[in-house]
Amino acid sequence: MKSYLFDKVALIGIGLINSSLARVLKEKGIAKEIVATSRTLKTREEAKNLGIVDKVVSSAREAVNEADIIVIGIPVAAYINVIRDLTNEFKKDAIVTDVGSVKGSIVSEISNLLPSHVHFVPGHPIAGTEYSGPSAGFAKLFKGHWCVLTPANNVDKKSVSKVRDMRLSSGMIVDIMSSEHHDSVLAITSLIPHLIAFSIVGTVANLEDSLKIEVIKYAAGGFRDFTRIAASDPIMWRDIFLTNKTAVLDMLSQFGKDLDHLKHAIQEQDGKALEKLFTKTRTIRRDIVGSK
Amino acid sequence: MKSYLFDKVALIGIGLINSSLARVLKEKGIAKEIVATSRTLKTREEAKNLGIVDKVVSSAREAVNEADIIVIGIPVAAYINVIRDLTNEFKKDAIVTDVGSVKGSIVSEISNLLPSHVHFVPGHPIAGTEYSGPSAGFAKLFKGHWCVLTPANNVDKKSVSKVRDMRLSSGMIVDIMSSEHHDSVLAITSLIPHLIAFSIVGTVANLEDSLKIEVIKYAAGGFRDFTRIAASDPIMWRDIFLTNKTAVLDMLSQFGKDLDHLKHAIQEQDGKALEKLFTKTRTIRRDIVGSK
Repeated sequence: MKSYLFDKVALIGIGLINSSLARVLKEKGIAKEIVATSRTLKTREEAKNLGIVDKVVSSAREAVNEADIIVIGIPVAAYINVIRDLTNEFKKDAIVTDVGSVKGSIVSEISNLLPSHVHFVPGHPIAGTEYSGPSAGFAKLFKGHWCVLTPANNVDKKSVSKVRDMRLSSGMIVDIMSSEHHDSVLAITSLIPHLIAFSIVGTVANLEDSLKIEVIKYAAGGFRDFTRIAASDPIMWRDIFLTNKTAVLDMLSQFGKDLDHLKHAIQEQDGKALEKLFTKTRTIRRDIVGSK
Repeated sequence: MKSYLFDKVALIGIGLINSSLARVLKEKGIAKEIVATSRTLKTREEAKNLGIVDKVVSSAREAVNEADIIVIGIPVAAYINVIRDLTNEFKKDAIVTDVGSVKGSIVSEISNLLPSHVHFVPGHPIAGTEYSGPSAGFAKLFKGHWCVLTPANNVDKKSVSKVRDMRLSSGMIVDIMSSEHHDSVLAITSLIPHLIAFSIVGTVANLEDSLKIEVIKYAAGGFRDFTRIAASDPIMWRDIFLTNKTAVLDMLSQFGKDLDHLKHAIQEQDGKALEKLFTKTRTIRRDIVGSK
């Protein structure tokens, strides 16, 4: 008889990330039964038609019933309302994990809400595309990418292992760190670049028309890359910035100071300072390209 | 008998841009003779071995002798010294053009240096790759890209037409505007994005080691794009910022104000303001993708 890592997996939300996970779990025989739910009827129909899960149900309560593991794959700002409604539904020793890109404050709020017989192993699979919805998912999405888990120190080790094994099965490389450390790292690798891109593209949006038309016409290398980043989902990013306020503001203030130094160097025509910085930044690029 | 647009073209500098132009001029039969020079022996040897020009000479003076058009393709900061040495070498009605990405102050300095029997038609072919040197060039580099010309109002119209025809022959779309307008547009499409990328990658370079290692390890979408931009040639960009001080500082100050508003919205948890901006920036992306 085949042994499964989980008898029942509940997917709360079945967008790009969770639908890709569903495909992996099927392909690798990780789960005996996969049940998914979504807030919107259209998404539920889409998931049902794709045949990527065993069952699509209309409420999170029904999905969670008797589930060994619950994977929350919805916008971070919606977590609290959904979890609050489920607190009496989890079976004993159920594992709760998520896929959110922000951890700090939301992780402690969820921990406080969950009953003590549930094991919370927050996760952030760092993978994605610019598309969304269950049809956009595919099993290879996670391959070779990092997944960060941020369980509290006192969380059941066996549950952490199971979440890790599930993520490893999708081809991810798994790392464990504190929520705060995760947020500092992600603030600078993802949040600040997005914020800056939104800001500078916004600056262009506010230019007088004659100049704006030409900026769009001549959009070269740098600015073109920025507009791609700044075309990301407005609601998702609004929530990410609001829920990750501390880490974002900290890094932003450091970035502001560094930009001021650079401005000062241009003002004072200090070529040596510019050359020194621009040479240093080349090294970082080599480190990143070298580490892949 | 075949008629050429130019009998003799002199290329001062034979890097990515001018070596690509040399290939176009040969391919399209635009010039009877192409002579190139470079400050460094290695580059001269490389150009000679590639066989992309008719003659490689060791001095700009020799290259300019009897040339109908002189294309300056060297770093902007080196213009003055090179031109100063050539003022008595130009033949009557010779055309001087360039490929620099900064126009304002340098254009007026060069105009003042050049003798009155020479026609100055500054140009900026907006094309390039991350590679440099004569071997990196190729004839299709310019195809479909914009070339901005910024001649003064009193410049000989026939000379402007000839430079335009030369650039059109490489597949570029040619536009004519003032130096100041060019610099404002380019400041925001290219200079500010580069400056910001240099700055934020510099912020990472200054982080404590443990955090820096992880930022490099997890470098996701946004930051990875920034490091590519920030790996651009340090000397070239130092010169661009030093020679384009006014336009850069103007745009930077506008960007700083917009970033402060965004910071304030996060601080005050103003979700509506964030959503509004992020929705507006999506439109700009559509305008750019739609215009290509």
